[in-house]
Amino acid sequence: MSLNEFSLIKQFFTRQAQQSSVIKSVGDDCAILSVPHNQQLVVSMDTLVAGRHFPESATPYQIATRAFCTSVSDLAAMGATPLWFTLGLTLPSSDEQWLSQFSEGLFAAAKPFNMDLVGGDTTKGPLTITVQAHGVVEKNCALQRDAAQIGDRVFVSGYLGDGAAALALLQHKITASDELSDYLVSRFYSPVPQIALGQVIAPFTHAAIDISDGLLADAQHIADASQVSLVIDVDRLPIHPSLHDAMQKGMLGYERDAILSRALTGGDDYQLLFTVSESQLPAVNALIEDKLIHATEIGSVAANTDEQYTVQCAINGVPYSPSSLYRGYQHFTA
Amino acid sequence: MSLNEFSLIKQFFTRQAQQSSVIKSVGDDCAILSVPHNQQLVVSMDTLVAGRHFPESATPYQIATRAFCTSVSDLAAMGATPLWFTLGLTLPSSDEQWLSQFSEGLFAAAKPFNMDLVGGDTTKGPLTITVQAHGVVEKNCALQRDAAQIGDRVFVSGYLGDGAAALALLQHKITASDELSDYLVSRFYSPVPQIALGQVIAPFTHAAIDISDGLLADAQHIADASQVSLVIDVDRLPIHPSLHDAMQKGMLGYERDAILSRALTGGDDYQLLFTVSESQLPAVNALIEDKLIHATEIGSVAANTDEQYTVQCAINGVPYSPSSLYRGYQHFTA
Repeated sequence: MSLNEFSLIKQFFTRQAQQSSVIKSVGDDCAILSVPHNQQLVVSMDTLVAGRHFPESATPYQIATRAFCTSVSDLAAMGATPLWFTLGLTLPSSDEQWLSQFSEGLFAAAKPFNMDLVGGDTTKGPLTITVQAHGVVEKNCALQRDAAQIGDRVFVSGYLGDGAAALALLQHKITASDELSDYLVSRFYSPVPQIALGQVIAPFTHAAIDISDGLLADAQHIADASQVSLVIDVDRLPIHPSLHDAMQKGMLGYERDAILSRALTGGDDYQLLFTVSESQLPAVNALIEDKLIHATEIGSVAANTDEQYTVQCAINGVPYSPSSLYRGYQHFTA
Repeated sequence: MSLNEFSLIKQFFTRQAQQSSVIKSVGDDCAILSVPHNQQLVVSMDTLVAGRHFPESATPYQIATRAFCTSVSDLAAMGATPLWFTLGLTLPSSDEQWLSQFSEGLFAAAKPFNMDLVGGDTTKGPLTITVQAHGVVEKNCALQRDAAQIGDRVFVSGYLGDGAAALALLQHKITASDELSDYLVSRFYSPVPQIALGQVIAPFTHAAIDISDGLLADAQHIADASQVSLVIDVDRLPIHPSLHDAMQKGMLGYERDAILSRALTGGDDYQLLFTVSESQLPAVNALIEDKLIHATEIGSVAANTDEQYTVQCAINGVPYSPSSLYRGYQHFTA
């Protein structure tokens, strides 16, 4: 891509920076950025590989929004304020139409967060997209995985299982009504980074993580980092009403066990999982009742069991194991 | 790579951070970093694609050092102090021996700069390596491409044409003595980021850039950004003595024109090109004479010609055009 890399960057990826913190954007050896005083920088890098993290049939617009949103979701989990992002774009050929749609998707996804694209690299090769998201947190106020305490309640934002249902739909394993399909496809390609929620809950929260690998896997990260165990009340998992309806009506080829197992293990939901102390519970519940945040209490933090940091599931106190049929994140190709 | 991504990261990419500015390193949703007061953050991302930016025969150690060094070179061009880096690693399979050698190369390359690996992503797919380098500069002191002024002298660090000769060697287009081969291969896989030089010259320099695309192409970037023209005295281009000797002796299959053309257009040298005002010339010459830096004056900055910002080459005042046989950066595959 070396010959026309410069014109390509100029044409598709150079926009006027929105923020005064961007001293120099795309176009020099480095971007020059100003980090506000008394704030700490937080950064996260995510890579999407064609055919693995999205189907080959995805549009350039969809690929861009998914790459952006999944990366920025990590900032949400820290309670951070998003600022800038960089883009590493490897693509087989410099197809102008493809690039035009990709950049349109990228800037559309970035707009609600006022994030500036400040640099990156474009290279020729198999389609791979790397986004690094940069944000800031007040000094020593970042939400982290290792701060859960015994007695905390466990909350999750939004709905669970959408990502896994969307994946099943895109892989033609299930069918759904047009309306539900639209919802699921949108959740897959444009999962909303829970930035606002992360910032609102930060003062009331011990530990937080974003759910990319699946509720159980990410709950386990909190358990391991905080050296505690978590108990999840499966009956309380928030399932989107349309998914729930379809399940009730026997549509989707989805049984209850499939819905719950995928909500527990499916991944790709990009909701926040967070823990709240007993003393902060009224404050968080008030935020929920006032509809300032959409979150559901789904469990609690317990002492570790036999030196093991576990995540246990139960329905009405009876241990529940997600069906192995639906376990774990399934990539498009092996 | 999702299943064993966590153990892979833990085993190969988690090291104790060297710097107090690293509040949280690998292992949470984001790294948390502290930018020193009154400093600006500079960041640069570079991607290497297997078979394109390095030959398929490269060892994991070599791939790692090249990915690291080429990315950090951009910090040098800003006169920055390097601090941290992130790694996006896409690889076909999680081969432990490969990963062990790769991480060994990565940390060996980072050690002289005391840079900490603070985050990234590992995914499964065609071998692609993205490194983002992060550093700091004193507020408003970053070297940039757009600050060259008419009358400035043009300097280059180190030697030119090593990268292109190395590429020709790796592509079996030339042969060389064992000693020269070793030197060239080392220059290709471990080009030394000119961090120390960038910091030393910063107070005396107008514009700077690192030479990754070739002297002429990168000089053109300075010309365009600064709205000036540059004149390069080809006879003054610094060629490594061993390359020069081999040329004199008719070895290498290299003629003078090939050497000069590749020094002008070859790329991959990762030296710094910088401009110095008349008034700072004695200071820079003193640095050179005292061997505090290795740099050579190779030209000057002139007014633009007919609204065109050009880079012109001359030998003893006679215009010189590099042979089109050796022009531009040649990737391993088309």
